[in-house]
Amino acid sequence: MQNIEQHIEHTLLKQDAIKEELKKLFEEAKKYNFKGVCVNPCNVKFAKEELKNSDVKIVTVVGFPLGANVSDVKAFETKLAIQDGADEIDMVINVSALKDCDYELVKSDIKKVKAACGTHTLKVILETDLLTKEEIKKACEICVEANADFVKTSTGFVKNGIGAKTEDVELMYKTVAPHGLKVKASGGIRDKEKAIQMLQAGAERLGTSSGVAIVS
Amino acid sequence: MQNIEQHIEHTLLKQDAIKEELKKLFEEAKKYNFKGVCVNPCNVKFAKEELKNSDVKIVTVVGFPLGANVSDVKAFETKLAIQDGADEIDMVINVSALKDCDYELVKSDIKKVKAACGTHTLKVILETDLLTKEEIKKACEICVEANADFVKTSTGFVKNGIGAKTEDVELMYKTVAPHGLKVKASGGIRDKEKAIQMLQAGAERLGTSSGVAIVS
Repeated sequence: MQNIEQHIEHTLLKQDAIKEELKKLFEEAKKYNFKGVCVNPCNVKFAKEELKNSDVKIVTVVGFPLGANVSDVKAFETKLAIQDGADEIDMVINVSALKDCDYELVKSDIKKVKAACGTHTLKVILETDLLTKEEIKKACEICVEANADFVKTSTGFVKNGIGAKTEDVELMYKTVAPHGLKVKASGGIRDKEKAIQMLQAGAERLGTSSGVAIVS
Repeated sequence: MQNIEQHIEHTLLKQDAIKEELKKLFEEAKKYNFKGVCVNPCNVKFAKEELKNSDVKIVTVVGFPLGANVSDVKAFETKLAIQDGADEIDMVINVSALKDCDYELVKSDIKKVKAACGTHTLKVILETDLLTKEEIKKACEICVEANADFVKTSTGFVKNGIGAKTEDVELMYKTVAPHGLKVKASGGIRDKEKAIQMLQAGAERLGTSSGVAIVS
């Protein structure tokens, strides 16, 4: 597997991360030539300053990690994140609405964020740990209809959650790839073996806080 | 301990809660005469419909559970939640800023939400599991300066978190009570014994999903 680093989004989303940890993340992203960094919205401006002379993409999260915000708040958060310098947006779906089979709400929620994204890449986090296979497939179909760019497995914040599973990534890839969408695997990717498994299952991007261990 | 139910905010914040579970929460809140319910922002409108002829207060959460959003998003989320029918707002502080000793940011973040609250009650979640005693005290002092109404211990979403601890509630009460602020204890309050401990330590409100067990 070549250029694995160009599939990695070097990720730091814990809510008590200090500036020193973020600086280290940005330096590592440049040093190892990672595709991007993924940080919380309050850190996007800082990322933009620190990464201004690099190709490292700035990814941030919206409605994260519960997805239980109203759509207008998700859209507003997206707009401000892009103003602050975000290149890509990873939003969380309304999981309750999916469970309640309120597919119109799941879709309109994504569409509002997509509209706020403009030409910026939108990834939609399904939180697969909480879903059945049927719900994963349905959520993927909704993401296709809503013109998302990626479907993504996990936030990494579910209690006792496993995160990215090979079978889920395969199912997601099979459902969205024919329509031109890609897959981001995230949650529990801590070594090279797992990273390669995910890429072989169809993932284009890997969200992980273990990027350095994976490429070393 | 009398009228313990009037200290309880009957809480359901899991991101995959379906409408049936929410309905049960609202029915129980009316039946047991709880002070309020605490639900995610996307469920506030539904709560307002279901609780329209009752005294049960509708509490929702902002910047939840990470607090790592930009302040303008927290303020906007507050405004929409109140429009949707929320009586009280429980926001999460910017924990990173507190850790970085950027006290001005911690304060301005709270003040922006307070301004969006108007006359509605604002509770500020410190996420005590992540803080030292000194940080808890400092955060309480900032909440006093920012004119919050309550300080609150926990989101209940920290991995391996304990939630409300007696010593923390006592420290919070001691720091804010002389200035007229109150304390909400939340996280890990699962039985009557713990509930009474929290009230005796100085808590005015209890956030718990075990309200029925506590009063039964």
